[in-house]
Amino acid sequence: MNQTIKELMERKSVRVYEDRAIEAEKKSIIIEAALQAPTAGKMTLYSIIDVTDQKLKERLVETCDNQPFIAKAPLVLVFVADDQKWYDLFCHHVERVRHPQMGDLLLAVDDTLIAAQNAVIAAESMGIGSCYIGDIIENYEIHKELFGLPKYAVPVAMVVFGYPTKQQMERVKPKRPRKEGVVFENTYRHLSPEEFIEELAYSEGEKEDFSAWVNAFCKRKWNSDFSMEMSRSVKAMMESWEKED
Amino acid sequence: MNQTIKELMERKSVRVYEDRAIEAEKKSIIIEAALQAPTAGKMTLYSIIDVTDQKLKERLVETCDNQPFIAKAPLVLVFVADDQKWYDLFCHHVERVRHPQMGDLLLAVDDTLIAAQNAVIAAESMGIGSCYIGDIIENYEIHKELFGLPKYAVPVAMVVFGYPTKQQMERVKPKRPRKEGVVFENTYRHLSPEEFIEELAYSEGEKEDFSAWVNAFCKRKWNSDFSMEMSRSVKAMMESWEKED
Repeated sequence: MNQTIKELMERKSVRVYEDRAIEAEKKSIIIEAALQAPTAGKMTLYSIIDVTDQKLKERLVETCDNQPFIAKAPLVLVFVADDQKWYDLFCHHVERVRHPQMGDLLLAVDDTLIAAQNAVIAAESMGIGSCYIGDIIENYEIHKELFGLPKYAVPVAMVVFGYPTKQQMERVKPKRPRKEGVVFENTYRHLSPEEFIEELAYSEGEKEDFSAWVNAFCKRKWNSDFSMEMSRSVKAMMESWEKED
Repeated sequence: MNQTIKELMERKSVRVYEDRAIEAEKKSIIIEAALQAPTAGKMTLYSIIDVTDQKLKERLVETCDNQPFIAKAPLVLVFVADDQKWYDLFCHHVERVRHPQMGDLLLAVDDTLIAAQNAVIAAESMGIGSCYIGDIIENYEIHKELFGLPKYAVPVAMVVFGYPTKQQMERVKPKRPRKEGVVFENTYRHLSPEEFIEELAYSEGEKEDFSAWVNAFCKRKWNSDFSMEMSRSVKAMMESWEKED
């Protein structure tokens, strides 16, 4: 196993950081690694907001499901799926230009996450931990205003970075699922609830009462406030994107 | 610059492959690297279809904007954003479960691309080239049938892998944009068409007539048939996802 693969395999989320800045040169490499990622049609369908303002970080704690560690991260990058620059350019030079649609949004989201993951891996290789904050897709209207975003530039991922504390370094990486439950040959395998429970037993460990576990998990992750806000927010974002005005 | 970062920086898409299989052990590592990626709520919101059937690869050539090199790739992975397994499990065990919505879809897309990029980087580190095929988000109905996908499992990325030919290895990586046009501090910078042209001049080189270049580019990438099919297909997928039946 080469060093890169070792890092991919061992990388786990880090949510507690040493009180230590990330060196300018290393920050620059993290960002450059993102920019060097593959991009659809060579269009770089994203922008990156480098959040350096402490007050803004503190606001993100609140808007992203109250996670105080966001404000303690020395580097906070918001990844924005961005068709605005291209749409404006096309409108300026081309006679008839179609409006951005959902296909354009999805392609831009793909581009954006590919770049984000490059940043995560670059950081990891330099001993810098990171954590994705999915909650950035909540509170669309607030984030739009906070970052001054136009209609066709929408936050789809946030990553916070910092040097891991000793405790975080020693934390055991949560077990991932085995291939059998995720990778299928040629045809999708529609796992029954019973089969999926078997797969979960592999990564989550056996449970005395799996039904109780599923109920608690569903309450925390699916029927939860943050999850409903996520759906409201993303729907609002998409409706704004689709509206031709 | 460490080895991982060197690989991230130098990685470019490879579309012509040596007539040589990818060793089973290396394929296994590529897939395992994907599975070890960060995942929201530890939910692994994706599945991977390993396309080994040559006839299916040939069909994907047609459904993905007629790109014959897809059928020549020794490894073809389709990355499917997947809420189906969780939704089924929740419905089986929990009394009241909300339907999957657009927020769930976007979170799953994030998860899926993060995993895909891990696979790409793992391959790169072993000298195996790759290429994203964005066109997998076209022809939703056909892909749904080809892979036997249920409603809440949708293809959002495809990556094809293979050993690069000598010519591909020597191909110069297309220049990426500079930070100034993509990375903004605290607030989004809404680039005017003129400013964006300046940024493009950096990565695309100076053009005698940028307006003509923009017109041709728009015709090829934005007002094109594949792009309109992408928008139609993604919209149909989202409408199916949102329909409560």
